[in-house]
Amino acid sequence: MLPNRHLARACGAILLATAALAQPSLAADVPKAREIPARVIPAPTDVSPELRQSIVGPFPAAELAAVRTGPTTAEEWRDLRARTAAADARTLAAMRAAFAVTIAPRSIAGVKTWVVTPAEVAAENRGRVLVHLHGGAYVFNGGEAAAIEAIPMAHFGRITVISVDYRLAPDHPFPAALEDAVAVWKEVIKTSKPRSAGLFGASAGGGLTLATVRRLKELRLPLPGAIAVGTPWSDLTKTGDSYYTNEFIDDVLVTGDGVLAAAAKLYVGANDPKNPLISPVYGDFSGFPPTLLTTGTRDLFLSNTVRVHRKLRRAGVDAELQVFEGMSHAEYVYLFNAPESREAFTEIAHFFSTHLAK
Amino acid sequence: MLPNRHLARACGAILLATAALAQPSLAADVPKAREIPARVIPAPTDVSPELRQSIVGPFPAAELAAVRTGPTTAEEWRDLRARTAAADARTLAAMRAAFAVTIAPRSIAGVKTWVVTPAEVAAENRGRVLVHLHGGAYVFNGGEAAAIEAIPMAHFGRITVISVDYRLAPDHPFPAALEDAVAVWKEVIKTSKPRSAGLFGASAGGGLTLATVRRLKELRLPLPGAIAVGTPWSDLTKTGDSYYTNEFIDDVLVTGDGVLAAAAKLYVGANDPKNPLISPVYGDFSGFPPTLLTTGTRDLFLSNTVRVHRKLRRAGVDAELQVFEGMSHAEYVYLFNAPESREAFTEIAHFFSTHLAK
Repeated sequence: MLPNRHLARACGAILLATAALAQPSLAADVPKAREIPARVIPAPTDVSPELRQSIVGPFPAAELAAVRTGPTTAEEWRDLRARTAAADARTLAAMRAAFAVTIAPRSIAGVKTWVVTPAEVAAENRGRVLVHLHGGAYVFNGGEAAAIEAIPMAHFGRITVISVDYRLAPDHPFPAALEDAVAVWKEVIKTSKPRSAGLFGASAGGGLTLATVRRLKELRLPLPGAIAVGTPWSDLTKTGDSYYTNEFIDDVLVTGDGVLAAAAKLYVGANDPKNPLISPVYGDFSGFPPTLLTTGTRDLFLSNTVRVHRKLRRAGVDAELQVFEGMSHAEYVYLFNAPESREAFTEIAHFFSTHLAK
Repeated sequence: MLPNRHLARACGAILLATAALAQPSLAADVPKAREIPARVIPAPTDVSPELRQSIVGPFPAAELAAVRTGPTTAEEWRDLRARTAAADARTLAAMRAAFAVTIAPRSIAGVKTWVVTPAEVAAENRGRVLVHLHGGAYVFNGGEAAAIEAIPMAHFGRITVISVDYRLAPDHPFPAALEDAVAVWKEVIKTSKPRSAGLFGASAGGGLTLATVRRLKELRLPLPGAIAVGTPWSDLTKTGDSYYTNEFIDDVLVTGDGVLAAAAKLYVGANDPKNPLISPVYGDFSGFPPTLLTTGTRDLFLSNTVRVHRKLRRAGVDAELQVFEGMSHAEYVYLFNAPESREAFTEIAHFFSTHLAK
């Protein structure tokens, strides 16, 4: 809407529009890439101090190299999982201190789960339940860490959450996680009305939420009344503009290479990574329940999120999108003491409250 | 949700969350900036061929320099406006060829407007009207070019659109554009029910849409039944993360320096650029009508858009957001033959159809 870039790209777009009309067949030699100069990007100013503090300065060159490589040996994987588990334990302790919830293990259909109950269940939520699918690239965050995102959800939503501690790769690649999610769902809807039950998760858990709904449709099983999908790993093929535009800008994932690519290989195995039960963005979204998607402007999975949102809307689904300023991948889950996190979970709770049957 | 960056930023976020809890006062020495290495960013693949073709390759160094400087003399401004007007004329001709609409000048309350009528007004829209405020940084796109965005809106929405050809800077700085918008609105609602009338625009027109609603509230005048705000210039102070993260990635605006900064100066004059009637993101959004916001992952104004969305939601407004993959600033307006443009306008039309009274 504004002239720029020598004559101006706004004018360029105008010229192009005109040219495209005059010449409907598209040129084969479409430019493929854009060179972006090295830049210094300041921390955003219109975010909370908590989020601002989480946005770090320069990446040391050695760390960048390590990120891009990712673990390559069984020992490096073991080491990374151990360090993740230690950090998870600290997060759990901090969340338990911050939120008055109880967390109890329960086996459901032979699958390990964690039932997270808030101090007080809201009256409107007494007949409702949420099933949660955790993130961690299908290789991390097993055990009680599975429940991390369920804690703020139970607290802010004043609702009972069942977190599925599904089997992880590499020991249990696709479709183990999906089978566990479906098995728990089938059991949950024996005692809850499906329309009173929601399904949610972030990152791999967001992708798995979408894959689970697709699988329930295939099996002609009742669908949830609503779902909340946080920055989903909806495409395991590294397709999506923000894999590139937000590379090194996202503080959490940093890059789609390295750890993320290595984890994808472990989960996908010999399957087609574009199988919609693995990369749900390639699936058909007709008949999906109302869906709320959450992401941030710095999220490496911004495109993974908005591509799903567009496809849901094209399928006529009641799908809403929230994008947080300056936020990297799933930061609202871990920065649970930031106002943005409270806001994200409160919106998700409101969405479930609006769409789930009582 | 995934370990990365040496130990891993996911773990980093966990550690930080824990640390922040243990030590609630935030450090004063928060890192302020991030060095991003030079990168090559491929054109996105999950976009239409039309949008893909509009995403260009490397910026020649000379062009980058020109963008960053912007016009500095009256002659350079004249030249830029003339070239923009010539490109606008080509766009208008192409749009007239593509869409069967009629465009008629009409003076309303002494303000120049263009009434755009589609080939057929939908039955449900016979008592409805949309008022349109064009983009162009408050300095470009006067005359019949004011109606460019109104043409696809009238066509896809099958609704009559009145496009306000408001006075432009530098001859008429703030608040001339706002006064013209309010004057037209007051006249329109003499013959249309306010709840049956919508207000929309992109870029400067998106910011002006928000400022107009605020001004109508101040004047205790009836508000529109719904508004559609495309990638609004909601903050003229270059605040917002995507001014930096999407610099040189946005094909249309490219950078917030140069032309954009120069135009802001002309419009703001001696006023406070944070005046909410100039930069509406700083205003109070309570009582706003239902709002649909549109942007893209490459948009320099992605933050200008999502910051407004969050503030609307915090104020309890029924506000929805759509973000198009790989799209730069307001590209859906000019790439009107791309599927994404049809989709954006169809969603906007659906939103008005849902929320405007008949």
